[in-house]
Amino acid sequence: MLRTHTCGELRLENVDQEVTLAGWVQRVRNKGGLIWVDLRDRYGLTQLIFEEDSSEKELLEKAAELGREFVVQATGTVIERTSKNDKIPTGSIEIKVSKLEVLNAAKVPPFIIEDETDGGDELRMKYRYLDLRRNVVREKLQLRHKMMQETRKYMDAQNFIEVETPVLIKSTPEGARDFVVPSRVNPGEFYALPQSPQTFKQLLMVSGFDRYFQIVKCFRDEDLRADRQPEFTQIDCEMAFVEQEDILSTFEGLTKHLFANVKGVELEEVKRMTFADAMKYYGNDKPDLRFDMKFVELNEVAKGKGFGIFDDAELVVGICAKGAAEYTRKQLDALTEWVKRPQIGAKGMVYAKYNADGSIKSTVDKFYSAEDLQAWAESFSAEPGDLMLILSGEANKVRKQLSELRLKMGEDLGLRDRNVFKPLWVVDFPLLEWDEETNRFHAMHHPFTSPKKEDIPLLDTDPGAVRANAYDLVINGVEIGGGSIRIHDRGTQQLMFKHLGFSDEEAQKQFGFLMEAFEYGAPPHGGIAFGFDRLCAIFGGSDSIRDYIAFPKNNSGRDVMIDSPSTIADEQLKELSILVNLKN
Amino acid sequence: MLRTHTCGELRLENVDQEVTLAGWVQRVRNKGGLIWVDLRDRYGLTQLIFEEDSSEKELLEKAAELGREFVVQATGTVIERTSKNDKIPTGSIEIKVSKLEVLNAAKVPPFIIEDETDGGDELRMKYRYLDLRRNVVREKLQLRHKMMQETRKYMDAQNFIEVETPVLIKSTPEGARDFVVPSRVNPGEFYALPQSPQTFKQLLMVSGFDRYFQIVKCFRDEDLRADRQPEFTQIDCEMAFVEQEDILSTFEGLTKHLFANVKGVELEEVKRMTFADAMKYYGNDKPDLRFDMKFVELNEVAKGKGFGIFDDAELVVGICAKGAAEYTRKQLDALTEWVKRPQIGAKGMVYAKYNADGSIKSTVDKFYSAEDLQAWAESFSAEPGDLMLILSGEANKVRKQLSELRLKMGEDLGLRDRNVFKPLWVVDFPLLEWDEETNRFHAMHHPFTSPKKEDIPLLDTDPGAVRANAYDLVINGVEIGGGSIRIHDRGTQQLMFKHLGFSDEEAQKQFGFLMEAFEYGAPPHGGIAFGFDRLCAIFGGSDSIRDYIAFPKNNSGRDVMIDSPSTIADEQLKELSILVNLKN
Repeated sequence: MLRTHTCGELRLENVDQEVTLAGWVQRVRNKGGLIWVDLRDRYGLTQLIFEEDSSEKELLEKAAELGREFVVQATGTVIERTSKNDKIPTGSIEIKVSKLEVLNAAKVPPFIIEDETDGGDELRMKYRYLDLRRNVVREKLQLRHKMMQETRKYMDAQNFIEVETPVLIKSTPEGARDFVVPSRVNPGEFYALPQSPQTFKQLLMVSGFDRYFQIVKCFRDEDLRADRQPEFTQIDCEMAFVEQEDILSTFEGLTKHLFANVKGVELEEVKRMTFADAMKYYGNDKPDLRFDMKFVELNEVAKGKGFGIFDDAELVVGICAKGAAEYTRKQLDALTEWVKRPQIGAKGMVYAKYNADGSIKSTVDKFYSAEDLQAWAESFSAEPGDLMLILSGEANKVRKQLSELRLKMGEDLGLRDRNVFKPLWVVDFPLLEWDEETNRFHAMHHPFTSPKKEDIPLLDTDPGAVRANAYDLVINGVEIGGGSIRIHDRGTQQLMFKHLGFSDEEAQKQFGFLMEAFEYGAPPHGGIAFGFDRLCAIFGGSDSIRDYIAFPKNNSGRDVMIDSPSTIADEQLKELSILVNLKN
Repeated sequence: MLRTHTCGELRLENVDQEVTLAGWVQRVRNKGGLIWVDLRDRYGLTQLIFEEDSSEKELLEKAAELGREFVVQATGTVIERTSKNDKIPTGSIEIKVSKLEVLNAAKVPPFIIEDETDGGDELRMKYRYLDLRRNVVREKLQLRHKMMQETRKYMDAQNFIEVETPVLIKSTPEGARDFVVPSRVNPGEFYALPQSPQTFKQLLMVSGFDRYFQIVKCFRDEDLRADRQPEFTQIDCEMAFVEQEDILSTFEGLTKHLFANVKGVELEEVKRMTFADAMKYYGNDKPDLRFDMKFVELNEVAKGKGFGIFDDAELVVGICAKGAAEYTRKQLDALTEWVKRPQIGAKGMVYAKYNADGSIKSTVDKFYSAEDLQAWAESFSAEPGDLMLILSGEANKVRKQLSELRLKMGEDLGLRDRNVFKPLWVVDFPLLEWDEETNRFHAMHHPFTSPKKEDIPLLDTDPGAVRANAYDLVINGVEIGGGSIRIHDRGTQQLMFKHLGFSDEEAQKQFGFLMEAFEYGAPPHGGIAFGFDRLCAIFGGSDSIRDYIAFPKNNSGRDVMIDSPSTIADEQLKELSILVNLKN
């Protein structure tokens, strides 16, 4: 045994015990013939003391030579500290060391291994194993572990069976972002890595598994953004003999279980909102409900008064920022500049301050009378002290712009508290969305999502208006999970593929097995998948999923620590029957 | 809600309740104006009854048209059965149906969906979703789920943190069997899929995670055998500040926990045996200890009596089959033929029967006197009624042959009971093994395994004799897990790579990050990995791991259900900067 206790374990009741600890040197202090060493491990910090009078000289010399991050084993007696440290659980004791062994020396780390570090992002990723030594980083991964454990506990209690679906599957024509894997045994052929276990979990429902889940790695070879990773983890779930309501209540249950057991937060009931309302009132299919500031449409009160910009706009719409009438001219100008940035793209912004004295001052006073502005205020239910911010233009665009502005105002006014959690089910998503690039409809969720029965006739006349049995779980403006009730009969599935522009032959080649499975007694079923990395980040109060992944990749999909991806030997390429072709 | 209860739930106390069930039609019986339907789901079977007099005619007609595997929803009243079926938990009641809806029809399945099926292997794999409907198959995956849950419960209680390591990693020169993944974002470069998370778990120890585990998919692109899969699952573990003993006791604990909580078996203490003894006494590094039949070496008593075959042999060695003296001549001839098959490769077999009357009859009586044979019997501690079976030849070869014979005798004599579990730690494996093909030493476990300190000097003089701090867990002759105490300093790791024939440059290119990590304070550490598929198979009493995998691949690495691997579009190849090259 290399240790009798961990560095977080000893207390006053252990005084006089002979113990052996092992860990990393966090700090060495040397004063008046005494040496103190803070010894660290995952469990805590314990102070070691070396005294000149009682310790052997050799031992003291050894201690004096210790550097930061040395790995040592120390044996000694637990004694009571004269000056206690009540900031750490072991702060009442220290170890009077009688034997010290250096298990491994350490070079000076490239950055400081403390909660606050001087290491930049790139350096910390290259030495991720040192970054992970920092408590604040390790605790994020411990949170993740706890989230996994609690997820499994809940799902198991709800009779879900965890089934591992294959990682080596088949590429699909929709799979432009599939990672592929050449097969050595089957030359010229490729597996693909799953973007999700979708078809397999549906087949498990056809198999009668009834309730399936899996915490599973998925893969997408797409251009990376700050909050995307080529490999990511999902809580993937499917249930048979259910309607939408059963799924929403089961996974509302999971969400509440996690908040209660991981964060000690009793979550309120999860609100519901249609996709149409989310777009109309928040300009966004994942509204942040930690604050109100709903959109108010002003076409009726703002048009026809001679202000050309509003008169020509499809939509005049605004938000009311409570208590923000005191914004200075400078602040308001900055806000106007902000919405005019190319990322937002507004042409301009109109504002109206509802002053404390009851008067309203706007940037378009020459077009609108005091009564006109009063009508605006009424539309907003504004009160003295409030600030009205108004955008105008093409409806879809202006809603997106106003959504950004709303989020910024929420942020600026301190309304987006990381310790407040406002969950929301967004329901009744459109089945299809028009893709400008390919000039055809795409499945908004995926091709296996069922249309609402009553909307099926619209598939031929107005495909964009067909609603799906699809739902997203949104927390604080972040999409945490999404799912749908699936198609479970061959006819509807074929119809769906047709509308997505598949030829019968393509559909058969790629998904023939699934459609055939539907002919052998497929139950009604549906499911959901949660983005686990993002869920952890929300729980940890962070915007970045990368912090919650042990060994993340950078924005170019590289692991800079192991230097991957990398070239491979010609011999290996030959064995796999492929060539590298950099010409195009 | 599509159902109020499952098909396994209703009992006598539910009589008179109005219920709705949903499930698959298992069987329809039609007799004297009555129709019975067995409705099946994952939870059980419930009998539905349709009566001519009381049911509407339309309903009865609908019921008469039901076929096997139709998916239906039935509403009705729970009534007490007149003739009860005590073989199923719901056997005291049936449902008098008032409303029946066919949720989905079903074609006639290609094989019978019952515990005993008429479907061959290939057909069942093509329609795996139907195969999975059979109780016996689904129960195997439920066992697997339970094994995962219990593993995680134990590991969590032991303070292990589950950390997900990356799936997209880096190919290594030792990785001839790596699956690789071309990177679209980094043209000409490849990721590799992990054969194990070895280096990452070691880095987590350098990070101070102290105790790591993961139930994780690993990948190996090798020629497949019946019990191998290109993707397989490991329980992967690592601990810091440990010696071999700590690891053995922790994972003996896991093994006992699983047996107790999954199978209700109180496992005995796990025996220990050195690799050298395993080879000497069982000719095998994974001896099946459900039966004794240890090897007995006979050089001393069998050589020098004029029997040339023994006299010329390096080793004369045999086993004693208790109570098998009654084997007939025909049986013994068959056994001789069996050991002479090319798969075994023995030149012949000598046997000696210890008859009930105390006489010994052997196939080599002309060379050996009664006293000589008595000396053999003493060596074997044989008693009247026993059968001695003896092979001879080159020591290593003859031990392998005798090992096969021993296993066969154990099987034939009914000594390999699937409900008896004999676990064993095999320890002190050699560090290196000679590879005839490449004409150099290979790491027997892997290049990160530490040599025994006292054996390090032998690395230069007699590399094959160096023992490793490596251990395997064997149950009933099957290797379930293996691991080692790792090297944790740069010097030893470099030395190891040198002895494995790596140039300094190669070692640095491939494992530079790991060796560098060792310089920043790496603690002593070690770990183990369990083959989870095989562990499940052992628990389920099966020889085939394939039964315990939801969607396994066949011997050519193909998933015949989804028809993968498959060719991919030229456009996709171009995007990935690769070409298919079938020329070689």
